[in-house]
Amino acid sequence: MIYFEDLEIGAVREFGRYQVTREEVMEFARRYDPQPFHLDDEAAAATHFGRLSASGWHTCAMTMRMLVDSMTEVQQAGLGSPGIDNLRWVKPVYPGDTLRVRTEVIDKRRSQSKPWLGLFKSRAQTFNQNDELVLDMVSNGLIRVRDPGVES
Amino acid sequence: MIYFEDLEIGAVREFGRYQVTREEVMEFARRYDPQPFHLDDEAAAATHFGRLSASGWHTCAMTMRMLVDSMTEVQQAGLGSPGIDNLRWVKPVYPGDTLRVRTEVIDKRRSQSKPWLGLFKSRAQTFNQNDELVLDMVSNGLIRVRDPGVES
Repeated sequence: MIYFEDLEIGAVREFGRYQVTREEVMEFARRYDPQPFHLDDEAAAATHFGRLSASGWHTCAMTMRMLVDSMTEVQQAGLGSPGIDNLRWVKPVYPGDTLRVRTEVIDKRRSQSKPWLGLFKSRAQTFNQNDELVLDMVSNGLIRVRDPGVES
Repeated sequence: MIYFEDLEIGAVREFGRYQVTREEVMEFARRYDPQPFHLDDEAAAATHFGRLSASGWHTCAMTMRMLVDSMTEVQQAGLGSPGIDNLRWVKPVYPGDTLRVRTEVIDKRRSQSKPWLGLFKSRAQTFNQNDELVLDMVSNGLIRVRDPGVES
């Protein structure tokens, strides 16, 4: 298991391969973000998106799936997230794109009130198959401390 | 249609009524956030969530659906969003909860390079049926300018 003590500031990981299908883009948009440029080719062509694109929240969800698969693989003792400091949908995501993720640990500290809990900041960037950045965010993570008895 | 010129800083709107079902919570989690505390009652009981809770990204998606329904209703000429400045999952969302949204326009400006485009910041807060804040975020929106020929 990977615990708080194992996180290294500056550590970079790259992973994931998510194929974005038109069917999934439209299914997500119909349910959660039914704006015309996520559902209709003609409406999308008339906007700065140029053509049908995925909901930004769908891009977050697909990125999360890659993050969770990676955390599961390395057995990271994650406990959820209090939030995101900054999130930018840098470029549209289109059906047919293949996404991947790069993460970097940028900060970590022990909880002051809960000795078993660690907090860390991680920058997560999602790229498409042309190595274009599509999503850039700084997320806050919670993680278990391996040895809560040891002072930080 | 509501255009950039119609947005008033300080304007508050309240809307939405989203019923969170266990089925939808697990469907979203299985696809996009398969962490044990979003999928398994026992695993969730062992965490600070206390019981099975929705993925934070699912809460964002449900909130977006209420936002889009409201924008559609008032015919707001929205053009998507470049991103979110700050997002906090303040409390867990549980199956059986009913969510609603409060938005407040907190800033607006014309694009310097595109006369037809306006930018605005809006704080969106999602509450549950007990009026507890579950999601708090500041989003950046793009909106069409009604009369691009008029100087801002």
